[in-house]
Amino acid sequence: MADLDCGDIEQLLNLTESFAEVSERPIPKVPALRGKTIAWLFYEDSTRTRLSFETAAKRLSADTMNFSVSSSSVKKGESLRDTVQTISAMGVDGIVVRHSGAGAPQRIAEWTDASIVNAGDGWHQHPTQSLLDLYTATRHLGSLDGRRIAIVGDIKHSRVARSNAIGFAKMGAEVTFVAPQTLLPANIEGWPAKVTHDLDEVIEDIDICYLLRMQLERQNQAVVPTLREFHEEYGLTTARADRLRRDALIMHPGPMNRGVEISGEVADRPNAVITEQVTNGIAVRMAVLYLLLGSGLDLVDERTQVA
Amino acid sequence: MADLDCGDIEQLLNLTESFAEVSERPIPKVPALRGKTIAWLFYEDSTRTRLSFETAAKRLSADTMNFSVSSSSVKKGESLRDTVQTISAMGVDGIVVRHSGAGAPQRIAEWTDASIVNAGDGWHQHPTQSLLDLYTATRHLGSLDGRRIAIVGDIKHSRVARSNAIGFAKMGAEVTFVAPQTLLPANIEGWPAKVTHDLDEVIEDIDICYLLRMQLERQNQAVVPTLREFHEEYGLTTARADRLRRDALIMHPGPMNRGVEISGEVADRPNAVITEQVTNGIAVRMAVLYLLLGSGLDLVDERTQVA
Amino acid sequence: MADLDCGDIEQLLNLTESFAEVSERPIPKVPALRGKTIAWLFYEDSTRTRLSFETAAKRLSADTMNFSVSSSSVKKGESLRDTVQTISAMGVDGIVVRHSGAGAPQRIAEWTDASIVNAGDGWHQHPTQSLLDLYTATRHLGSLDGRRIAIVGDIKHSRVARSNAIGFAKMGAEVTFVAPQTLLPANIEGWPAKVTHDLDEVIEDIDICYLLRMQLERQNQAVVPTLREFHEEYGLTTARADRLRRDALIMHPGPMNRGVEISGEVADRPNAVITEQVTNGIAVRMAVLYLLLGSGLDLVDERTQVA
Repeated sequence: MADLDCGDIEQLLNLTESFAEVSERPIPKVPALRGKTIAWLFYEDSTRTRLSFETAAKRLSADTMNFSVSSSSVKKGESLRDTVQTISAMGVDGIVVRHSGAGAPQRIAEWTDASIVNAGDGWHQHPTQSLLDLYTATRHLGSLDGRRIAIVGDIKHSRVARSNAIGFAKMGAEVTFVAPQTLLPANIEGWPAKVTHDLDEVIEDIDICYLLRMQLERQNQAVVPTLREFHEEYGLTTARADRLRRDALIMHPGPMNRGVEISGEVADRPNAVITEQVTNGIAVRMAVLYLLLGSGLDLVDERTQVA
Repeated sequence: MADLDCGDIEQLLNLTESFAEVSERPIPKVPALRGKTIAWLFYEDSTRTRLSFETAAKRLSADTMNFSVSSSSVKKGESLRDTVQTISAMGVDGIVVRHSGAGAPQRIAEWTDASIVNAGDGWHQHPTQSLLDLYTATRHLGSLDGRRIAIVGDIKHSRVARSNAIGFAKMGAEVTFVAPQTLLPANIEGWPAKVTHDLDEVIEDIDICYLLRMQLERQNQAVVPTLREFHEEYGLTTARADRLRRDALIMHPGPMNRGVEISGEVADRPNAVITEQVTNGIAVRMAVLYLLLGSGLDLVDERTQVA
Repeated sequence: MADLDCGDIEQLLNLTESFAEVSERPIPKVPALRGKTIAWLFYEDSTRTRLSFETAAKRLSADTMNFSVSSSSVKKGESLRDTVQTISAMGVDGIVVRHSGAGAPQRIAEWTDASIVNAGDGWHQHPTQSLLDLYTATRHLGSLDGRRIAIVGDIKHSRVARSNAIGFAKMGAEVTFVAPQTLLPANIEGWPAKVTHDLDEVIEDIDICYLLRMQLERQNQAVVPTLREFHEEYGLTTARADRLRRDALIMHPGPMNRGVEISGEVADRPNAVITEQVTNGIAVRMAVLYLLLGSGLDLVDERTQVA
């Protein structure tokens, strides 16, 4: 997200709007990437993100190739670089990467001519998640300039929090991280976000309450007392949700732990736009793949319906 | 199967006939579901059933999406309902579900507008297996009215047995369960089937001998003495197969344990239609998917060959 | 490879040339196998070979079906023969097989009318690897008649070594196996290859230095002292690579263990054609699939660009 400026983001969101319209058609496909091949290189499990990208690729008529790490030469000791060069040698145009190492997509981009999309690298960044969140927020709130977003929970281990802090700040929003000290990153001063340990302090003033997934294993790592206590102190409980502004949005990147970071009842309220985020994820990823791999032909001409 | 009446089943079998003809073409594809997306949501391993549905979907020109449970958010603690709503939010038109919980597909149908197909739920039902068995039997025997079918083996743990008891009974056949007491369900009286513990008693009178897969792990559960003894008492041995009527069919849902529920030699006899069941499974699943997801346009017009 | 004569191989390499040209097109697809279905039946992990075949199949417009052994009826005790007959009954036209048992593809071919492609069977053969190596070598060296190739390393456990010994010898090349006694097969006399234990003895005279992958677990099997010593004695070190002829090729089937059978620096030299082998693998597999499954129509007419 750090590489994009406000204008880039707006261009992406406008393109997303066009692709969202494609997704509403009876046959939600355009031939924009026909003949292009996109490989998935996922070093961490992810069904949601992979399916979202895969659906986006299919709607653009691209071919896909799944480089499954669990049953691959990676297990046989091949270096990341050799794996990437092998995939490239098979003639792929783009590689969508998820990797546990921060910066892995960047390094990969140096080893291949294929376009690289970061689908999450360690605790570092998850840019398409941020773009879909920005798109979803904009659809409901219009301009984000001066809007207030609280990002709540396990900031420390969250690439989503990092990408969204940058993304929302770039669009003019005021970002506040809400977390206990144990769940904040060490270098918190460097982030374009205020910090508080008290969700109740901000709950009435925010336009967006963004809950992060609480990984259940944290409980055993002495960073939170118990999940129940975490819910009481940092979760979006029914009582807290009642104190939100009427038009404030409730967002979550999924998958949710109902009863931990968010009350089960609250997750189903009308102003919780969590499934809408999933839907918008496909259009955002169509826009990203199209910008990186598209032929450069005029978009309007190209997005004629597949015959 | 309980929801379908005799007329529904006949309609499905007629439609299956049309799709079986499509499968014989040099290019066995029709554009009937072009632009539709079907997701597989399999909570239990199944290659055969999934591939059969997948082939059916491809022949109908649908797109598919595999929600692999083993590497998914399900493992991260997401509820079934949230998983279903996430898949729905990605814009799928149908979800084919296999789940260990009886009734899971029914519950899922309440949470989404997508059409749900039950591909096996616990010990409860496996309706497309029953439909393909009905289709296969009808092709050889004509009307099933008054025909006799013995369903043999592990009735207790078999959704196939339950679906077929209902399906064959609805079509007028007389169903007999053949099993030791330990492999019969508790509420056996409620089923439209006679019961016997003696395969030899019925072997000469039946039109169909339907063997169920014997799960090898039952051996250690004290429900059968040994697999060898099970074969002698309840298996379709060579000697028993010789006593079948000349035109009686031998059926099995696969995968077979040769030498357990069926003799290896018997499985290869001309009246064993086991691989034909596999072939017919594709046409039946094309019919089911088409009825649920089809556009409602006139079928004859639509099933023109893919250009 | 034993079944092909020199003319067959030349025909395949010519066809490969045509398909390599297809792969260079903006939309690298031809409708040659439209409506055909190819199943992958892989009993051993392989991402590289499977993706290469899958890409080849897609470029020929075939449909594909992945019979995943790890989550399949195979685990439920189904025999190989029943698995093959089930796949066949689903209407596949070709089956690409990888199996740990030498000769498995041959046996499978007796059980089905589908065309069978051997994608590696035990230590026995890996014919498409050999064909892509022959194609790659020919592109650089022209005729292989009288050329010298050293195949170096773990010959004993290598189907690639066996296929290439036959393939290169058929095309007139002089093949030398270079390995310690512990890594040579027992019946070495039967192979069309000379044998030496000394790589330095041949390094200056060869046109191709073909390194085999050293499986890291051999280290614990007392067949090599340590991987470091193996590298010194049998690896293509920087010093040895400097002694190669200027135009000699360095080849490897991948995945590489840099620092074991080949120095990391050497693997990146201009005369190392290792990623080119990967690229050529797709065109070779297109040729093989086309010859087995193609309609027999005139190739030139058929390979018009996909509209």
